[in-house]
Amino acid sequence: MQTIVTRGREESGAMVGHEDARRLGWLGTGRMGVEMGRRLLAAGCDLAVYNRSLAKAEPLVRLGAKPVASAAELGATDIVFITIGSSEDLITAVLGADGLMAGPDGAVPKVIVDCSTVSVEASARVRAEAAERGTAFLAAPVMGNPKVVRAGKMTAAVSGPREAFDMAEPYLSMLGRGVTYVGEGELARTVKLCHNLFLGVVAQSLAEVTILAEKSGISRQAFLACLNNSVMGSLFTGYKTPAYVNLDFAPTFTASLLRKDFDLGLAAAREREVPMPVAATVYQLIQSLVGRGYGESDFAALLQQQADSAGLPLVSEHADVSDGLGSGDTPSTS
Amino acid sequence: MQTIVTRGREESGAMVGHEDARRLGWLGTGRMGVEMGRRLLAAGCDLAVYNRSLAKAEPLVRLGAKPVASAAELGATDIVFITIGSSEDLITAVLGADGLMAGPDGAVPKVIVDCSTVSVEASARVRAEAAERGTAFLAAPVMGNPKVVRAGKMTAAVSGPREAFDMAEPYLSMLGRGVTYVGEGELARTVKLCHNLFLGVVAQSLAEVTILAEKSGISRQAFLACLNNSVMGSLFTGYKTPAYVNLDFAPTFTASLLRKDFDLGLAAAREREVPMPVAATVYQLIQSLVGRGYGESDFAALLQQQADSAGLPLVSEHADVSDGLGSGDTPSTS
Amino acid sequence: MQTIVTRGREESGAMVGHEDARRLGWLGTGRMGVEMGRRLLAAGCDLAVYNRSLAKAEPLVRLGAKPVASAAELGATDIVFITIGSSEDLITAVLGADGLMAGPDGAVPKVIVDCSTVSVEASARVRAEAAERGTAFLAAPVMGNPKVVRAGKMTAAVSGPREAFDMAEPYLSMLGRGVTYVGEGELARTVKLCHNLFLGVVAQSLAEVTILAEKSGISRQAFLACLNNSVMGSLFTGYKTPAYVNLDFAPTFTASLLRKDFDLGLAAAREREVPMPVAATVYQLIQSLVGRGYGESDFAALLQQQADSAGLPLVSEHADVSDGLGSGDTPSTS
Amino acid sequence: MQTIVTRGREESGAMVGHEDARRLGWLGTGRMGVEMGRRLLAAGCDLAVYNRSLAKAEPLVRLGAKPVASAAELGATDIVFITIGSSEDLITAVLGADGLMAGPDGAVPKVIVDCSTVSVEASARVRAEAAERGTAFLAAPVMGNPKVVRAGKMTAAVSGPREAFDMAEPYLSMLGRGVTYVGEGELARTVKLCHNLFLGVVAQSLAEVTILAEKSGISRQAFLACLNNSVMGSLFTGYKTPAYVNLDFAPTFTASLLRKDFDLGLAAAREREVPMPVAATVYQLIQSLVGRGYGESDFAALLQQQADSAGLPLVSEHADVSDGLGSGDTPSTS
Repeated sequence: MQTIVTRGREESGAMVGHEDARRLGWLGTGRMGVEMGRRLLAAGCDLAVYNRSLAKAEPLVRLGAKPVASAAELGATDIVFITIGSSEDLITAVLGADGLMAGPDGAVPKVIVDCSTVSVEASARVRAEAAERGTAFLAAPVMGNPKVVRAGKMTAAVSGPREAFDMAEPYLSMLGRGVTYVGEGELARTVKLCHNLFLGVVAQSLAEVTILAEKSGISRQAFLACLNNSVMGSLFTGYKTPAYVNLDFAPTFTASLLRKDFDLGLAAAREREVPMPVAATVYQLIQSLVGRGYGESDFAALLQQQADSAGLPLVSEHADVSDGLGSGDTPSTS
Repeated sequence: MQTIVTRGREESGAMVGHEDARRLGWLGTGRMGVEMGRRLLAAGCDLAVYNRSLAKAEPLVRLGAKPVASAAELGATDIVFITIGSSEDLITAVLGADGLMAGPDGAVPKVIVDCSTVSVEASARVRAEAAERGTAFLAAPVMGNPKVVRAGKMTAAVSGPREAFDMAEPYLSMLGRGVTYVGEGELARTVKLCHNLFLGVVAQSLAEVTILAEKSGISRQAFLACLNNSVMGSLFTGYKTPAYVNLDFAPTFTASLLRKDFDLGLAAAREREVPMPVAATVYQLIQSLVGRGYGESDFAALLQQQADSAGLPLVSEHADVSDGLGSGDTPSTS
Repeated sequence: MQTIVTRGREESGAMVGHEDARRLGWLGTGRMGVEMGRRLLAAGCDLAVYNRSLAKAEPLVRLGAKPVASAAELGATDIVFITIGSSEDLITAVLGADGLMAGPDGAVPKVIVDCSTVSVEASARVRAEAAERGTAFLAAPVMGNPKVVRAGKMTAAVSGPREAFDMAEPYLSMLGRGVTYVGEGELARTVKLCHNLFLGVVAQSLAEVTILAEKSGISRQAFLACLNNSVMGSLFTGYKTPAYVNLDFAPTFTASLLRKDFDLGLAAAREREVPMPVAATVYQLIQSLVGRGYGESDFAALLQQQADSAGLPLVSEHADVSDGLGSGDTPSTS
Repeated sequence: MQTIVTRGREESGAMVGHEDARRLGWLGTGRMGVEMGRRLLAAGCDLAVYNRSLAKAEPLVRLGAKPVASAAELGATDIVFITIGSSEDLITAVLGADGLMAGPDGAVPKVIVDCSTVSVEASARVRAEAAERGTAFLAAPVMGNPKVVRAGKMTAAVSGPREAFDMAEPYLSMLGRGVTYVGEGELARTVKLCHNLFLGVVAQSLAEVTILAEKSGISRQAFLACLNNSVMGSLFTGYKTPAYVNLDFAPTFTASLLRKDFDLGLAAAREREVPMPVAATVYQLIQSLVGRGYGESDFAALLQQQADSAGLPLVSEHADVSDGLGSGDTPSTS
């Protein structure tokens, strides 16, 4: 099967400033785009930026990015990264009247790297139309939230033409802890779905064992400190810990959004004819969480549902716990 | 509730060689005991060792440990660590005729630190009888296997008298990445059960998403590289990766043993009246795994069961993948 | 909410032969249509029949039904019953060029009673177009298979205009044990989906307890005799008993078809935001059954899967067991 | 394997009044005992009765039963039926100082038929001690509640010595719809556990589909009328219908008791190494029901939990629905 390439920054970022350094563009400077673009600038890259509302690009411009007036103008760069809100936005931004592929003198980038979370259908359509005009398209859905990116711990699965990956990879590696090439076409989208199914299962199981520990007389803080420190600890279990300990269910990723990821993930499993007994069980629990009124809460409210089912009243432990991401300003992140 | 103490080596190990350094003993030098004792010796501790079959203590004696002829003789030390096979062995070794509490001139250790996995009942009995003779008993079940210990990544939950913990903690911290004090009595046993329930759920969910990825066209190696690198990656997902990629189901921890942990964990949940929907689903899948003939295989065979249910023939990817523990000699660890 | 009407034959079938007896038509004389039509004829009804391949209508013609040359000719009757294979067939047969609504002189029936299992979308479309031409449309999906019909034990949920139901109800009641009016529109389709979800759950649970009983030393025949005789026994548990006892998995309703019903049922649950923890668990088990090669077997193969997971080799008990439907010619029915 | 014997009243009750009619005894005249004994008296049997509090035996005495002053005095009869509250009560009543086996002149019955729900251990002990004194012991746990018995629809699984069954069977058959001989020893206890696991699964699945139907716009009354009328309908779905329609959760069998049955049933499955994926899922839902405060409600409160998880407010439909048992005095029965 495919050769695996997982490279981190150390191994690959060496060519910035070289004569063969690429001109980069960034399309869409929302919270994710700003955090990711900031890292390219910090590494000394040449970066042009475009956003519908240019004000949002300000943080990057202040750091040296060159603002341009339309997506089309980014066609003059080599590699354009995209972080955009929806499938429709992607289609407009790339294929639309003033879009990336409508460069003034027919200039188009060599490679598009789409870091958004869009549908397989939209991705495939943009991929096909871009290819016709000579632009390679990489699907590179990101695993992590803005705070994870800021902490330098973002990763991505990447799929698309291998040569395009080889060209983009040094810059992708600057964005976080490294990226993994998983093959042709939309395969990276599937990886993202799998990742999110796994994330939901881990969140529910964490809720179950945390409530069992608490009802046995162990504080959530103590239990989760233990678990995070053990071989089972992950960045994820670490950064959800403040929410579980202090019952902070302010949404970073809502239960409804997690349900949507499970809709897609389980539909993919059905299409591939793969039974998912545990993910299916969690899906129903998320549905129940929404039904009980937590749809717009953070999915960490799975803990509350679990406590209610165990007849255990929950109170915040008001503990000073770290999210493990190294910057204490926000108490909890998706 | 209790104050949490999670300390690692840097913060605590400073008193070795000091005049107030404790005399240590080690009772039971199986694979775990040898790896753990080795770390104390490497840190310069004064260590006496006893094992029924003395040959097994050899590796530690070669590194400077002092062999003694009976468990009773360890009574002359301050803190005795125990790693032993079963509840019965613990009772014999501590309370038996020639046991730890039968020291020649009534000498008993100040603190016993039991790192074994024994029943709550055995633990409580030994605790009570030791307390009567002035010896504090700490339950300190270990999270990790010998290879994890060797890589310096072992952790433990600890419960028992707080002062005893304070005395033992500098040495406990030398054993790995730090330990967490979770409260009085047998609470640490519950933490271990919770840890293992979580481990089983993660292993099954990992099997589900890995098979979904593979049936979608992504190699297991690529998918797991991606996941391990992401915020969901843990030491555990890392060290099971070689087994999942190369289908190495040689037992490090058998499906039958994992079932036993689920027996105990779900019994604890029943006793505490905590529903565990996801753990219960996994329990049935482990039972099915045993029923299908994988009882004495490593529990990583959950991947095989999952593939069979998906109608996907599995073949080893014969890939050179690391287990993330830093020493490549064994391909897969529990 | 709606008034419930569940009437059986005794209470309603009195007007046959009366001057106000309706002229009836039957469109689609497959296995189900023949068994159902036969009952109307036996009750003395005036019945015209049409089938694309007229040979299949023969059994009814021999009993006195009048064959017609096109669906359009059935427009001259009052009430037309339909049993047809697919959504597309329904649309063609009713709305097509030579369809039921294309009667020579604009004659259309007063009421259409669709006893097929078609999609909500197709049903709603036919309903709307028929209504425009003055014909009321009743959705009346049948619960039971041809053998159940023949045994006089078929039932149906019915939805659509209430007056149409009142007109058709005497004849519907002749078809089996009575029908239930559940409300407007496509509601009867939902009842059928719920019925089939329940059926799948019961089949799996039956497999679980039967295997538990057998592994404990009780023959399947003895156990199921007991259960069928108890308050838990139903026509369904009775007519699946020969398959479970004698391992006859010749398809009456395949695992793949049951999976399709679960696809639809769980999609309806998702749309209505109703968690279905048990049905979702069974769905995954059916998917696993398909993955293990039983897709084209009868769904009774759930028993085999359950036995395999329990490590129990199954052999037929070669027992002479009744299916409870009163005619011993076929050993097992869906 | 064993020969199956399922006989109903018609086939077997012929010998009452004959010279070979047996003298019968009844030990324990609680609600179940009274309803069952009443049926023997109605059939003309010769019945002696004993109960600790004799007042409770009054209804049977009025119908012609002969009261005796101690369990021991029942030793003079041929067959003694027992319906008693607990394992301890069984042991005392049979083996105790003044118990059944302590007859004045060593007189003991030929056969004991225990219709109670007691532990396998207690049953096996009483069986062994009775056998030593020449009395055969039949385990005959009843499926049904007092109202089911009164309606003549009770059944039982019976295990123990075959000749004893043959002797008792004519009288057992008078108790309801017939009994099934399932083999030696305690096998009938297992059948009862299987029956109750199945009952719990059916109750939960019924809750799921009923809520799905209701959220789709179909009244519970209409939906359940439909289902009860269909091939899926059973006495059980019928007699729970009033509770589901009118939200009558007055306990006939509490959620806590159902949980206890699942404790035993799943322990048996674990011992036999049979995975029970669906029963295990329901077990957790019952635990959750208890945790949410419904432990002392009827287990029909599963419907309420299901509605809460679906975000559906439930109100009684105040409908006049039958429980299908033919006597309208109590609205709902376990």
